[in-house]
Amino acid sequence: MTLDKKQHSIGFIGLGIMGNSMARHILSADWPIHVYNRTKAKADDLVGRGAVWMDTPGEVASQSDVIITMLGYPHDVEEVYLGPGGLVERARDGAYLIDMTTSSPSLAQKIADAASARGLRALDAPVSGGDVGARQAKLAIMMGGGEEDFKTVLPLMELMGTNIRHLGGPGAGQHTKMANQVVIASTLVGVCEGLSYAKKVGLDPKQVLETIGTGAAGSFQLNVLGPRMLDGAFDPGFYAHHLMKDMDIALTESGEIGFDLPGMKMVRGMFENFKNEFGTDFGTQALFKLYDR
Amino acid sequence: MTLDKKQHSIGFIGLGIMGNSMARHILSADWPIHVYNRTKAKADDLVGRGAVWMDTPGEVASQSDVIITMLGYPHDVEEVYLGPGGLVERARDGAYLIDMTTSSPSLAQKIADAASARGLRALDAPVSGGDVGARQAKLAIMMGGGEEDFKTVLPLMELMGTNIRHLGGPGAGQHTKMANQVVIASTLVGVCEGLSYAKKVGLDPKQVLETIGTGAAGSFQLNVLGPRMLDGAFDPGFYAHHLMKDMDIALTESGEIGFDLPGMKMVRGMFENFKNEFGTDFGTQALFKLYDR
Repeated sequence: MTLDKKQHSIGFIGLGIMGNSMARHILSADWPIHVYNRTKAKADDLVGRGAVWMDTPGEVASQSDVIITMLGYPHDVEEVYLGPGGLVERARDGAYLIDMTTSSPSLAQKIADAASARGLRALDAPVSGGDVGARQAKLAIMMGGGEEDFKTVLPLMELMGTNIRHLGGPGAGQHTKMANQVVIASTLVGVCEGLSYAKKVGLDPKQVLETIGTGAAGSFQLNVLGPRMLDGAFDPGFYAHHLMKDMDIALTESGEIGFDLPGMKMVRGMFENFKNEFGTDFGTQALFKLYDR
Repeated sequence: MTLDKKQHSIGFIGLGIMGNSMARHILSADWPIHVYNRTKAKADDLVGRGAVWMDTPGEVASQSDVIITMLGYPHDVEEVYLGPGGLVERARDGAYLIDMTTSSPSLAQKIADAASARGLRALDAPVSGGDVGARQAKLAIMMGGGEEDFKTVLPLMELMGTNIRHLGGPGAGQHTKMANQVVIASTLVGVCEGLSYAKKVGLDPKQVLETIGTGAAGSFQLNVLGPRMLDGAFDPGFYAHHLMKDMDIALTESGEIGFDLPGMKMVRGMFENFKNEFGTDFGTQALFKLYDR
């Protein structure tokens, strides 16, 4: 099937920094769009541009053929999708439900099962690229769910991202995002340790970073977050508490199949120490503070 | 001072895969060059092109104004430089001694002190870029030692590398290389864990790699070594036992200043397990074997 902005309507739930930019791209492409957010004020700008405010997620669902969610934690996702008056209960027959939150693969499977039982089409579609990627419509989007459903919603996804892939059935998008976060966790520690070592032994760490950033030690984490570490620029970017959530999901999922991730487990412990000392309202690069003292 | 191929002669000691390519670039630029290697046969090709074989490192030193070494382990470096009949004993007055082995920063300092006491000029200049970088004369070269001495030998270094930096006094080059290896160690674990997670949960890991390699999880380790892991291509590249040596040096150096590198310490332990099970005649990417079973 083909989505058509004359016949079909979009719902968007979750208008934080990421969701706001993403919904704006859909609106700018002239799709009719109904929106909901826990904090209503964050929808003001979108409503001023023509989005229609709804008072509950269920009401958004009742008006929409495609419902996109960009929420915080898996328990938010579970409530919005599976709770009483939630999306699976209220969605129109045959509607597409696309969760772009980074959330649990098992929950994505559970939602897909519930959706399927009601004749709905669920896709999991977490993203990477952060606030900048969202603003520039250059997100990577990792999708799990039915192949045909993926193809149907692809034109909508292309309004928000550039590297959009279908990785498998329900949960495959979330699993791919978890693989991404698992890689990031230990890479981040390598960057913290290398740069703090450089400082401790008396080198100019910025010069070290420029020297090693182009070779085998090079990474997004080193080349983008390394300079922020050295400048003491610890604002998010990507929140420490979000990475902690993601690591918890990955540890749960890997634990369920009896697979050990000792590196990431250590990183999770480091962030626990970090949280106890500094709180978590920082970007992930602030982990450097544990070393740089 | 300016080095001049009509007046000055180069010595090159250590003609393994890396050293061979590096010496060839110097020879190709028409410098007179004397060479030595523990296994003589590895010098045959260079001698055929005009390099002059010497029977000991000390004899190379006695013929050279600039002596370059590319050896294996710190104990090799110590013996060749500081042992009886070694470079510091036999070098011409005012000669430049450039150790390009990845070795201990403390030893670099010790060599610089001994060299200085004899009126010699020592530089530490480890490289990154591997056999390919050496072959293509595109090494990154990280130099420690006197600023003036660095400037004098820079034209020679430019025959072998492209990103050549002076990072500080004696040992600063080695410390920078250690920072590089510290970053690599944990990054490698992140890549192993992310890709093995992807396989374990039933995703197509190659597709996952393509998806996540361009974003915040991206790194040289992921994008270059990740495909080799998934193809079971475990040949070196960069030998596991060399990384183990480097991690040992970094742990010794950081231990001496009471600085903890818990991530790298864990990686060192993993490689110990790896070695016990598989040996170490593999590239570092073979660490994946510990996860992929």
